[in-house]
Amino acid sequence: MNGRPSSAPDRAGLAEALFAPRGVALIGASDDETRPGGRPLRFLRKHGFQGAIYPVNPNRAAVGGLAAYPDLAAIPGPVDLAYILLGAGGVEAAVAACGDKGVPAAAVLADGYAEAGKAGAARQDRLAAAARAAGVRLIGPNSIGLLVPATGLALSANAAVAAERLIPGRSALLTQSGTALGALLSRLQARGLGFSKAVALGTEADLSVGEVGELLAADPDTDAILLFLESIRHGPALARFAAAAHAAGKPIVAYLLGRSDPGRAAALGHTGAIAGSDKAADAFLRAHAILRVDHLEALYEAAPLVAGRAPGAFAKAAAVVTTTGGGGAMAADRLGLAGVPVEGLSPPAIARLREAGLPVKEGRIVDVTLAGTRPEVMRAALDAALSENSVGLVLAVIGSSAQFHPELAAAAVAAYAGSAKPVAAFVVPHAPETVARLAQAGIAAFTTPEACADAIAALRAWTPPRPPPEAAPPPEAAALLAAGATGGTLDAKSALDLVAALGIETAPSVVAAPGAPPPALPFGFPVAAKALGPAHKTEAGGVVLDIADEAALAAALATVAANAPPGGILIQPMVAGRGEALLGFRREPGIGPVVVLGAGGVLAELYADAAVRLAPVDEAEARAMIDEVRGLAPLRGYRNLPRGDLDALAAAVARFSRLAALPVAEAEINPLIVRESGVVAVDALVRRAASFGV
Amino acid sequence: MNGRPSSAPDRAGLAEALFAPRGVALIGASDDETRPGGRPLRFLRKHGFQGAIYPVNPNRAAVGGLAAYPDLAAIPGPVDLAYILLGAGGVEAAVAACGDKGVPAAAVLADGYAEAGKAGAARQDRLAAAARAAGVRLIGPNSIGLLVPATGLALSANAAVAAERLIPGRSALLTQSGTALGALLSRLQARGLGFSKAVALGTEADLSVGEVGELLAADPDTDAILLFLESIRHGPALARFAAAAHAAGKPIVAYLLGRSDPGRAAALGHTGAIAGSDKAADAFLRAHAILRVDHLEALYEAAPLVAGRAPGAFAKAAAVVTTTGGGGAMAADRLGLAGVPVEGLSPPAIARLREAGLPVKEGRIVDVTLAGTRPEVMRAALDAALSENSVGLVLAVIGSSAQFHPELAAAAVAAYAGSAKPVAAFVVPHAPETVARLAQAGIAAFTTPEACADAIAALRAWTPPRPPPEAAPPPEAAALLAAGATGGTLDAKSALDLVAALGIETAPSVVAAPGAPPPALPFGFPVAAKALGPAHKTEAGGVVLDIADEAALAAALATVAANAPPGGILIQPMVAGRGEALLGFRREPGIGPVVVLGAGGVLAELYADAAVRLAPVDEAEARAMIDEVRGLAPLRGYRNLPRGDLDALAAAVARFSRLAALPVAEAEINPLIVRESGVVAVDALVRRAASFGV
Repeated sequence: MNGRPSSAPDRAGLAEALFAPRGVALIGASDDETRPGGRPLRFLRKHGFQGAIYPVNPNRAAVGGLAAYPDLAAIPGPVDLAYILLGAGGVEAAVAACGDKGVPAAAVLADGYAEAGKAGAARQDRLAAAARAAGVRLIGPNSIGLLVPATGLALSANAAVAAERLIPGRSALLTQSGTALGALLSRLQARGLGFSKAVALGTEADLSVGEVGELLAADPDTDAILLFLESIRHGPALARFAAAAHAAGKPIVAYLLGRSDPGRAAALGHTGAIAGSDKAADAFLRAHAILRVDHLEALYEAAPLVAGRAPGAFAKAAAVVTTTGGGGAMAADRLGLAGVPVEGLSPPAIARLREAGLPVKEGRIVDVTLAGTRPEVMRAALDAALSENSVGLVLAVIGSSAQFHPELAAAAVAAYAGSAKPVAAFVVPHAPETVARLAQAGIAAFTTPEACADAIAALRAWTPPRPPPEAAPPPEAAALLAAGATGGTLDAKSALDLVAALGIETAPSVVAAPGAPPPALPFGFPVAAKALGPAHKTEAGGVVLDIADEAALAAALATVAANAPPGGILIQPMVAGRGEALLGFRREPGIGPVVVLGAGGVLAELYADAAVRLAPVDEAEARAMIDEVRGLAPLRGYRNLPRGDLDALAAAVARFSRLAALPVAEAEINPLIVRESGVVAVDALVRRAASFGV
Repeated sequence: MNGRPSSAPDRAGLAEALFAPRGVALIGASDDETRPGGRPLRFLRKHGFQGAIYPVNPNRAAVGGLAAYPDLAAIPGPVDLAYILLGAGGVEAAVAACGDKGVPAAAVLADGYAEAGKAGAARQDRLAAAARAAGVRLIGPNSIGLLVPATGLALSANAAVAAERLIPGRSALLTQSGTALGALLSRLQARGLGFSKAVALGTEADLSVGEVGELLAADPDTDAILLFLESIRHGPALARFAAAAHAAGKPIVAYLLGRSDPGRAAALGHTGAIAGSDKAADAFLRAHAILRVDHLEALYEAAPLVAGRAPGAFAKAAAVVTTTGGGGAMAADRLGLAGVPVEGLSPPAIARLREAGLPVKEGRIVDVTLAGTRPEVMRAALDAALSENSVGLVLAVIGSSAQFHPELAAAAVAAYAGSAKPVAAFVVPHAPETVARLAQAGIAAFTTPEACADAIAALRAWTPPRPPPEAAPPPEAAALLAAGATGGTLDAKSALDLVAALGIETAPSVVAAPGAPPPALPFGFPVAAKALGPAHKTEAGGVVLDIADEAALAAALATVAANAPPGGILIQPMVAGRGEALLGFRREPGIGPVVVLGAGGVLAELYADAAVRLAPVDEAEARAMIDEVRGLAPLRGYRNLPRGDLDALAAAVARFSRLAALPVAEAEINPLIVRESGVVAVDALVRRAASFGV
């Protein structure tokens, strides 16, 4: 008997309950092994779970040959983990019963929650409340379960767990979807890679990927963590997990859906994820030093490449050492497409190899075909490539020997597992045994040039986590926002005032009352007139530019007043500069505040050319954003064009990004004119937020 | 004895010789089975070749237990095909001996030819000449051989041919590299897909991919042809092959290296390919209705998807029918990234399925998880999706049933092989048996979402071959080019005259002599002054713009004369319009003449935003090019911007592309000003070509 705990378990207690339970209860266990409810019992026994297994089923005396209990209370021994296999209707009562029994954690199989519209979301909220009230931490709902191969804890309803064996390994798997768990499990195992723990989090009513991830960051059996995500949800918890994993030296690799419209729609339909934009997700992952891969195979094939490595592990060029010219060309071509520089051996290195009797060809790839496919040839060439200063990673490309001499092919490369510079392999033919041998030896063995280049490019893009800068917004800005009513969009003048309060120069302006004669201007012609109201788009006739004199101004004021009533009209001088930029700010669901820098003008919009970062950023990060926007190249001096004041632009980006700490939902400066000296905000849009959590 | 033929074989004779030889000679066959020269004999016997096998080796009485002949002349029976396994030094003599014996075709294993620098290229030329002189058609050099599984003709030195069995199938494989042949062979076979014929063409001294491809287009055992290309070489032959295959209803799928700098360098090092730009290669493949895939796996996994289909087979949206929400989301996400629209079922279709007891969810993917993974469920959902008007292809996503019930999982989808709308499968777990069963049934079974979306996107982009338009350039243009000396670059005035002769309006101009006073102008100020010499780049000070009056013109003429002597100075009016474009023409090695349309200005260059087509094009194709260039969107009326005269632009593109028939190596109009009505070429560059074959 557990006795009744006063509250939910602490972190260590939760890890014990989830990953090393003394006893597990299967609430709603069924004898029908073809049904999901019948599978966990079968799988636990198949994979040799040594803890106690308690089927709970009031309608049967026994399930699967084990004594069944009518309810949790009737179970004699301690239960550390329950898997609730009932339909949604019975789940809340089962959670309450877990609380009564003192069960610290439970997984929930049922669906019909956050992924099932409004009613489902409400049901999910009730379930979360029930869990809190009972002091029970939940995995799910819509969780296909969790797996610990080393102890046979196969607490899952996923058909893939019917595999003959669950292979223990040192990577952990976290997914939202259950399918992904099964797919990854079967694919990992087919490549000879095992896993330490695997958990499907479902729709995350209580425990999120981040919270379970933190347990894995502290898990002595886990070296790397692989995430299959439908969307980024519960960003702050994910960020804490990433920080803990980084501190523990455990890389995280993520494959993230929702990259395209159909993908987002499918993800929404599937788990109710509110998908943010992919660029914001990318900024989130990068800021938290989570490696992102684009190919499904790269997610699991990359695990040995990243385990034991830290951000910056590979920053230089890659060398491709190959026993087959064609295979080397495939790899080099795709590495180049992925932006990874590829370098051949230096002339002295080639000379040394030739002196040693190894007839290596000159060229961008290190082709040792002529020397024959003996292991010592591959080793000499790998050593030579690893010795080059400009080389940071070596890719061994293995040809037909992989197919017919797996032991030889694998042995030559396996010796480089854990070498100071990473060594990976691309296996050109279909050669599963070589792939498995390499993986087991700790060498990432890729089976396609595409996944290979994807993973290597992700490793090269891996930078340390970026701590958010100390960047409190000036009190004036907060005061300005507090002054008006909450909610809604600021008028053009107030928006510019807020921008000015952030410390960004704005174009001078005067507000004219509609119908009144043109006011005296403290600046010269030409000027622009714009409706003060929030939606003064050019298309609506609410803007007149290049007004040359007073008469034209009077006419323009009449035009604007007619086209975009009601409210005042903003008059500004026309501001020229060497170029323009667009600066945006918004809060992405699940991710948090982001700042966006784009080149100004219609072409930049057409090319979707923008840099995105989590907000706030400091000026150094803002400079990195400027360097990333291709359309700002002219301001960087491209083709000897006159440079703009990029220091001032970086300062403006950093200051604008401090909106993160203010109740602003979204904001934009467009255009931000970049001059030879300084930048000037000409037009701004600010929408307040009632609250501004993630 | 063959007797001595008077000339090389005709096409049917060549196909017979290559694919159904009565006897094959292995010239330089060795007893050492670990050496390439020892393999073909072993492989021919292992795979049961029924024709005669004649080892030729003057140093041995027997090779591999077969009587060896001292030379070809000593062979008693007919020899239709020889495989020359000697080093490069002995190859030419062997080819001559083939001629003497009347052997119509020979493959050459040796390397050291076009891929090996200048000396190698010269050796390749000598070899080609020797083959012509002998009346022998050559495969190679650097050819790893050719394979016909149905007859056991395993005439190859590739280690992959040691496979237990060569599986006959209905796709043919053509590669340049030998590695690629082995890799594809092993991968195809692992997926249960076989092949009809496979040929590695090496560096193509005589027979090219295109020429052998034409034989396959006529081959009754071949339904589709898969190409692994390092670069596009011998474009005209490839084009003839593509036309023949299209006429025969046999799709061609290509995977092409050389997409990145390292890839091009590796390809160059490997086979001496002179790689053209990837965009030009893409234009070539598209114009000839060759499907292009980007993922290696897509090349072979796509074969059953395209076989028996014609361009336009899939033009609408894809539907994703899935037994697993997560797997469906993976596929839909990647399809969206690849630009393939994904549509769910219409409400009436959902209603009908529900009435039939199939609880399908609403949404972008057709998720039948709740209905269980019975074959009849999948079939009902596939039927419903195929019945939707807006759907042109259905992707069946198969979850864990693929892993544990291959026969059921495959049977449900296999029934749709050859259906009017294509049906493909994405198999989510590692499930090789299901993959093989589907492939054998004629359903393309993809194992990653990436290759799946890649192949489906290629199918959707597949258009009929584009016949080159009748587009002879005006005789004036030819006369202008013939007037000057051949070779070299035209001066600015002559280049503009050539553009005008093509029928494209040019800005008026006057030529001033250096040092002379400003000439009288037949147009008003402001004007521009440019050095007449070919390299009058803005950076060199050879151009002065916006010259306001006569005094400024005098100063400008002095400046230009000082910065860019010698020669005259071109004076033009400043030309304004609604936008500008850049029009280019060049001849790509291996591919032929291409025309390039880009948006003008520095940003378009930064974004590498250009449409490329084989030249010449007609106006309809030119319109398609205009639509493809994102930076021209403002001229198309984007955001209500004033439109430019795109009909005139299309006419100019078509006329400019007629340079294809003139001795011009490259040419450019930049800028081509697009006005509300008409277009005007302001500046042009033309470089003559001595000859202008591909």
